[in-house]
Amino acid sequence: MPFEITKQYIEDIQQLIAEKNDDSLHVLLEEVHYADVAEIIEELYVQEAIYLIKLLDSDITSDVITELDEDTREKVLKGLSSKEIAEEIDELDTDDAADIIAELSEEQKEEVIAHIEDEEHAKEIVELLRYDENTAGGLMAKELVKVNENWNVLTCVKEMRAQAEEVTRVHSIYVVDDADKLKGRLSLKDLLTTSTKTAIKDVFIKKVDSVNVNDKAEDVARIMQKYDLEAIPVIDEIGRLVGRITIDDIVDVIKEEAEKDYQMAAGISQDVEADDTIWELTKARLPWLILALFGGFVSVSVLGGFGDAMKHFPELFFFTPLIAAMAGNVGVQSSAIVVQGLANDSLRGSLWNRLIKEVSLSLLNGFILAVLLMSAGMFFLGFEFKVGLTVAISLVSVIIIASIIGTFVPIILDKRNIDPALATGPFITTSNDILGILIYFLIAKLILGF
Amino acid sequence: MPFEITKQYIEDIQQLIAEKNDDSLHVLLEEVHYADVAEIIEELYVQEAIYLIKLLDSDITSDVITELDEDTREKVLKGLSSKEIAEEIDELDTDDAADIIAELSEEQKEEVIAHIEDEEHAKEIVELLRYDENTAGGLMAKELVKVNENWNVLTCVKEMRAQAEEVTRVHSIYVVDDADKLKGRLSLKDLLTTSTKTAIKDVFIKKVDSVNVNDKAEDVARIMQKYDLEAIPVIDEIGRLVGRITIDDIVDVIKEEAEKDYQMAAGISQDVEADDTIWELTKARLPWLILALFGGFVSVSVLGGFGDAMKHFPELFFFTPLIAAMAGNVGVQSSAIVVQGLANDSLRGSLWNRLIKEVSLSLLNGFILAVLLMSAGMFFLGFEFKVGLTVAISLVSVIIIASIIGTFVPIILDKRNIDPALATGPFITTSNDILGILIYFLIAKLILGF
Repeated sequence: MPFEITKQYIEDIQQLIAEKNDDSLHVLLEEVHYADVAEIIEELYVQEAIYLIKLLDSDITSDVITELDEDTREKVLKGLSSKEIAEEIDELDTDDAADIIAELSEEQKEEVIAHIEDEEHAKEIVELLRYDENTAGGLMAKELVKVNENWNVLTCVKEMRAQAEEVTRVHSIYVVDDADKLKGRLSLKDLLTTSTKTAIKDVFIKKVDSVNVNDKAEDVARIMQKYDLEAIPVIDEIGRLVGRITIDDIVDVIKEEAEKDYQMAAGISQDVEADDTIWELTKARLPWLILALFGGFVSVSVLGGFGDAMKHFPELFFFTPLIAAMAGNVGVQSSAIVVQGLANDSLRGSLWNRLIKEVSLSLLNGFILAVLLMSAGMFFLGFEFKVGLTVAISLVSVIIIASIIGTFVPIILDKRNIDPALATGPFITTSNDILGILIYFLIAKLILGF
Repeated sequence: MPFEITKQYIEDIQQLIAEKNDDSLHVLLEEVHYADVAEIIEELYVQEAIYLIKLLDSDITSDVITELDEDTREKVLKGLSSKEIAEEIDELDTDDAADIIAELSEEQKEEVIAHIEDEEHAKEIVELLRYDENTAGGLMAKELVKVNENWNVLTCVKEMRAQAEEVTRVHSIYVVDDADKLKGRLSLKDLLTTSTKTAIKDVFIKKVDSVNVNDKAEDVARIMQKYDLEAIPVIDEIGRLVGRITIDDIVDVIKEEAEKDYQMAAGISQDVEADDTIWELTKARLPWLILALFGGFVSVSVLGGFGDAMKHFPELFFFTPLIAAMAGNVGVQSSAIVVQGLANDSLRGSLWNRLIKEVSLSLLNGFILAVLLMSAGMFFLGFEFKVGLTVAISLVSVIIIASIIGTFVPIILDKRNIDPALATGPFITTSNDILGILIYFLIAKLILGF
């Protein structure tokens, strides 16, 4: 069923744009979903994209603009006047509208807002712009259906009809008091099966989940997922109903959360994509590489410090990359498991039990790996027993230490309210590299006595 | 608003269970959401958990069982008879019911299904068990509201009422023909504002997105996200409506997809959690470590092969962990960006352009890092110019090669329908380690001529 965008199709559209054949473009794109139009636009040159956006109806293009990649959107919006942007904004729900306006320059923001026709809409958007994008306030939309507890069913149904026109999907009907404070919710079924004179007060459900406007986006995501909610009302500091968040907005938060952890672990500052510019990619990648480089210097110094051992035991130096790599791998494994556990709120039990478990696990894995290493090292590579033993003991020690660091650094960061994902990737690999090499040579010195 | 489960609260519940004080337990847990009951159960001993499950109403406990961690669920279900499990299953939607039954042993499966009271329900569950869990069929539920195009509005409303009782949330009303083939959907608004004698044929919307029962779960997730759908109908090979998938099932797929990529990158076989047993964790982690160990052997052999260089240029060996680490880090960065791009379907442009971009990016990053390395190496660590130059040139070469491998191996795997995430983590680090060291010593040989 998905719509296939072929190269031919794009070329046809480009041809029609070049010919300014507006009628054919209208016919061709009439039935196409806005998400597909957005994909088409991503394939066009900026001038062609702007031409299409100006040509098509703003009830389509407003959604198209919302779907575009941030970079493409920026370029397209630069080709539109503030008035044209305002026309698109007029068609959007407040949350999407605020997201787009937030990306504009300060100056253009004001111009666009001044051009929005519906004053109420403009006011609501301005209100939403106040909130941090990573909070419930930054996620919520103002569009919702609410009724006063003091109304009767008849008034309620009438008012609801008017409100529902603005709301694409009615998930819930919220009940407020005269001060606009959230009191509960109303079931559509109850509303339709009750006499029209009944007071809302007597039929509404008093239990309703809600979040505070300042709650973190990821906490909202967690609550909506846990309780399987398709929408949740948002209240302000004194309990007034100020908006609602729907599950589709949360899907993006969940995805971004998971992707952010992955990117951190891979040593990329978040929010970078394969199609970003070289400059943006460098900004995201180089800092971590510089960190790793300086870590590398430390390992060079450590090795230099044990340089004398080279005369008698040159084989020791052949094993350093192996020891460093194993330390890095074990550290990344341990930290990834803990970071995901923290993200899913599924870490249970005491730190002490976790320590015992991590050490047992490392002993088991380390022992198996050490046996493999000693057999292979002595039989295939022909190293003497003492050297093999040194490397094997070092391997086990390094694995234990790397797994303890990988496990507890994220936990400690999390306790101090620092993103635990910071402790994954290059950070953990580099510090485990250094520590691994240091431990390795200390053990070697102890056993081989150079 | 979230419900806080304190240590005291758990102890109170354990105390009440020990006293078999059923009345107090009922009172205490009466108003608690099933998702919270599930969290409480995770904190209890198995026998206590089973006691609670048997005590509480199955309309709550059925949902509780669905929410439990797989491990806990397995233990709890072992404490219930097939008849008791069937009672829970009776309360669940077909998709959740099938998921739980799928986890049972073959023998118990049959027993439980035989005990399900509602025969229609049992038949539908058996049908769902046929589908692979990673397909649309494995995600869908049989509960949906469908009407025949040949009915009139009156019949339709009557039939719908009966069907709607079984369906928790009515997202859409689907229209089928006499052969049960999906023809379109019906808007609730149109239905309520049309004369009761109108034929459904004349009012329904012919355009409806759908997925095939064999479509991959991740493709379904992509379509629902792209088109912002809260539910999508599922059709079989000949177009018959067989089920529907709702957004909350998709949220789990999206999350698992993202987490799986992360775990692969960290060198953990998927589906392992911090609280799994040491044995399960070893199974997930050890294979990757063994892979890395064998990679390590290769690097030992490569270094051994260049052992003669040690006499004249011992410093070269101090830099091997640094070179290997940088190669690993760059490779992981590149592969992570590509894997995420593939997952989000956002990789555009030709392979050739991507190659040019990746090489330019590496040259830029590599050059900056090489300058840093040379300055630091020569001024602070006091290496001679030729050695510094060797290491710097090697660093740039290794970075270019690592980023090309990191970028293209996932793309090639994806083209061959292998999960590109396989090419991240230990695999890419290990191969880049080896290749990095090899290139480093080859360049050193060329420049220093040992």
